[in-house]
Amino acid sequence: MDKKIRAPLYECLTAHEASRPVSFHVPGHRNGQAWRTDKEEQAIRHERFDRFGGILSIDVTEISATDDLHAPEYAIAEAQRLAANLFGADESMLLVGGSTAGNIAMILTVCEPGDLILVQRNVHKSVLNGLRLAGARAVFLQPAYETDEGTALVPPLDTVEQALQRYPEARAVMLSTPNYYGRAVMIRPYADLAHSYGIPLLVDEAHGAHYGLHEAFPASAISQGADVVVQSTHKTLPAMTMGAMLHVRERYIDLERLRDMLAVIQSSSPSFPIMASLDIARAMIEEEGPAFFEAGLRQAALFRVEMKKRNGRLVAASDGKKQDQSVSTTKTDVYGPKWNNDIRIDPLRVLLHDERGLVSGYELLRMLEAHGCWAEMADEHRVLLLFGPYVSDDETKRLLAACEAIEQVLESDDKEHDKGRVGSQRLESAQDEVEVDQMISEPILFTMDRVNRDTITTVTLPDSVGYISAETIIPYPPGIPLIYAGERIEQSVATRLARLAEMGAKCQGASDPTLRTIRVIQ
Amino acid sequence: MDKKIRAPLYECLTAHEASRPVSFHVPGHRNGQAWRTDKEEQAIRHERFDRFGGILSIDVTEISATDDLHAPEYAIAEAQRLAANLFGADESMLLVGGSTAGNIAMILTVCEPGDLILVQRNVHKSVLNGLRLAGARAVFLQPAYETDEGTALVPPLDTVEQALQRYPEARAVMLSTPNYYGRAVMIRPYADLAHSYGIPLLVDEAHGAHYGLHEAFPASAISQGADVVVQSTHKTLPAMTMGAMLHVRERYIDLERLRDMLAVIQSSSPSFPIMASLDIARAMIEEEGPAFFEAGLRQAALFRVEMKKRNGRLVAASDGKKQDQSVSTTKTDVYGPKWNNDIRIDPLRVLLHDERGLVSGYELLRMLEAHGCWAEMADEHRVLLLFGPYVSDDETKRLLAACEAIEQVLESDDKEHDKGRVGSQRLESAQDEVEVDQMISEPILFTMDRVNRDTITTVTLPDSVGYISAETIIPYPPGIPLIYAGERIEQSVATRLARLAEMGAKCQGASDPTLRTIRVIQ
Repeated sequence: MDKKIRAPLYECLTAHEASRPVSFHVPGHRNGQAWRTDKEEQAIRHERFDRFGGILSIDVTEISATDDLHAPEYAIAEAQRLAANLFGADESMLLVGGSTAGNIAMILTVCEPGDLILVQRNVHKSVLNGLRLAGARAVFLQPAYETDEGTALVPPLDTVEQALQRYPEARAVMLSTPNYYGRAVMIRPYADLAHSYGIPLLVDEAHGAHYGLHEAFPASAISQGADVVVQSTHKTLPAMTMGAMLHVRERYIDLERLRDMLAVIQSSSPSFPIMASLDIARAMIEEEGPAFFEAGLRQAALFRVEMKKRNGRLVAASDGKKQDQSVSTTKTDVYGPKWNNDIRIDPLRVLLHDERGLVSGYELLRMLEAHGCWAEMADEHRVLLLFGPYVSDDETKRLLAACEAIEQVLESDDKEHDKGRVGSQRLESAQDEVEVDQMISEPILFTMDRVNRDTITTVTLPDSVGYISAETIIPYPPGIPLIYAGERIEQSVATRLARLAEMGAKCQGASDPTLRTIRVIQ
Repeated sequence: MDKKIRAPLYECLTAHEASRPVSFHVPGHRNGQAWRTDKEEQAIRHERFDRFGGILSIDVTEISATDDLHAPEYAIAEAQRLAANLFGADESMLLVGGSTAGNIAMILTVCEPGDLILVQRNVHKSVLNGLRLAGARAVFLQPAYETDEGTALVPPLDTVEQALQRYPEARAVMLSTPNYYGRAVMIRPYADLAHSYGIPLLVDEAHGAHYGLHEAFPASAISQGADVVVQSTHKTLPAMTMGAMLHVRERYIDLERLRDMLAVIQSSSPSFPIMASLDIARAMIEEEGPAFFEAGLRQAALFRVEMKKRNGRLVAASDGKKQDQSVSTTKTDVYGPKWNNDIRIDPLRVLLHDERGLVSGYELLRMLEAHGCWAEMADEHRVLLLFGPYVSDDETKRLLAACEAIEQVLESDDKEHDKGRVGSQRLESAQDEVEVDQMISEPILFTMDRVNRDTITTVTLPDSVGYISAETIIPYPPGIPLIYAGERIEQSVATRLARLAEMGAKCQGASDPTLRTIRVIQ
């Protein structure tokens, strides 16, 4: 690594390690001592755990040689300053509890109990949990949909404006963008709008940690004026899982409250390896620059091109069209490459589907797994493949070979398939499925109150329409609640749940995993 | 490792790794691919990050080959069953957010907004944060003190009984034991008392993850009838930091609510290496049995004996007496070795202090660190040394040599010391410092409400007596709030804060790190 690029937290930990310290403190593995294999008496016992050794020796605690995440002064403070500099924030905070911690903390920061906040309807469950913990009143705004794949985006700008006019007491606007499929509209106008009402724009940018770091990627939310942005650094940058970052602009945010809330929600003994991996991830990207992403971009484009050449029934696209759109590196405006209808896509995400609509995404995912190719997620129609940093030629070849083999299987027993399995029918857009009765919901009070058990009853899914749901059901991935406790069950939602059950989707929160029944409030 | 002892989660991860999977999913390091040094183009760049490789290849996400912590069915479910079996619980849950997550989740489980709970006054800040998030009303119970070192224990049993009589609507009793110094009274009578009122006993046993696993240790809380117990597995067992466990007895606990609360408070992308380290820690202990702790016990005893032989001014003791009390392995009753006044001590914790009372624990800690010996924590009077698993002869020798060298320095410039530094004066017990006005507080409503800024003013510490504090001040370690926002500042507390400032203690939450001023509500 270039010596000019520093990783101060990682360096602090290795300097402490190099001093050959004796640990009379937690953690109990004592710098890995308890796991070591070089002691005669343990030679056999712990050999399977060799792999942890290098990490355990830097898995330390808050001692004077390290620093304290919740009151950073030295190495962590410096690591955070370098992150803020790279990502263009006034301040950046390292998170060890994932974007979950960031989403909860940002809501607790802006909302006291009873406060009102405007929230995009299609948010990650951690946002709803943040609303519950805050005791906030949420006004939900229906998302817009992009036409190519029908995935949900942020709400239309005029919906947000109407909501702000109707609820001038709103404490913040909370958006989630890009969506799981990497699709986004640029949010500068939303930031400007929120600021014109004197309130901050909060953004869950969990899937866009790499945005703004290569000209093929869309612009980042913080660069577009958002006030608090959470990024899952572990998702698309090379940090360890649970490593995330919060990027903040000070103007509309009470930084002291935010720090307090992060200390409330996160462990008082945060993991130094996870924090160090965030520091290193930032340093790696700073060192290599946009080149860090070239291999992933190249292989994603190669996969799309090869799949198009093959012209089989499996279709791979980042932009939702059958024709290849290899990665453009020509900026069409300041926000990065522009696609149809002003939608920005993430060229590292490739959607794969069966053109004939006979095989569900869930099934396709399982078939890919049987070939050793593990995808990010599936929905009814599609599999989402994430081309991360340093995908190799060989890996793309394995994926291409897997697709070819799957197509052969599909062709050979096509009739059996048609009979025996529930296909995905057609690539219908999400608009068709969810009727939008109103763009702006009434305020809904979120609390940690338990529902009175005596009022709960179990009904079949078709019978549930019109009842208030007693459970929050979250198809995972993408982890967006389809219905939550306290919300009235619309026909469209019951239909969608029934389809998910048929497809074999995994749903968290459902008392009946088969989704044949649902608990409602009488 | 004996093949009969399984580590199912770890084995699941290595089996997936061995299948040579190609990752088209998060995390962005792609099974470590992005960090690898065996690719020509990256050979130089990432060489410093080699140590992470073995971990990154099992730092996966929720795919069908692994499992989902928040809806466990396979490897994680099995790992949890094995943990429950070893620790004697009906159910055990792996935690990735430390004991912080466990404390918050258990309070959210038993308390809805406005519910009343009896809480020991000297609890970790995560308990107070749990009360805030729950919107609970807490009745605080003053702790009892043990006479040897003056450290705070759980409240007297009759105090709890009086509180239960006064507040029969209480939802639970929450205790924290053992304390940071490893001292505890046995809590079976407290469990019986709570159950006689039909409510659960919650225990923060963060410092006692090893209790009950060797006959030299006190009995564990779960074995004494507690209903939910959180243990910092990472503190005294060999798990990675943030790895903790929740042990549950079902009878008085709504398990469904508890699982929901854990999913609320913890990351939706939990760290598999941390979870695997919990699985492995349990397997290691199961395999080795009590022998796992022998080296630590032997070295702690050796250190105490050698220090006593030297008869210098630094005194080392687990039991707070100058005479050696080497570890007894004779059970005096079913709860483990019994010491003075029914107080059980943790023989792996050794307290070190200057017999002349001229050197504070903080200063002693820094002097030990200069010799490469890193202690668990210091207070005004003492340094706490934690003898974890597999302390070696060499390590104890280094500690003994450090103590000898420190004594020589102290002797040589003793006069200078007496003049120039703030000593610890004398080993006074905590009772002298904190006047106990009442054993049972009035109910105090905890909320996430922000204090109105206009009502906050800053005063000097001496002037603050009688005001309501606007800040929570937490000397760390041990992380127990001395005063919290909303509480009236007593003279005894102001005095203690002033002393901590003089000693150079680190206090989280203080707006003025020097503690010369404090923010109060007018």
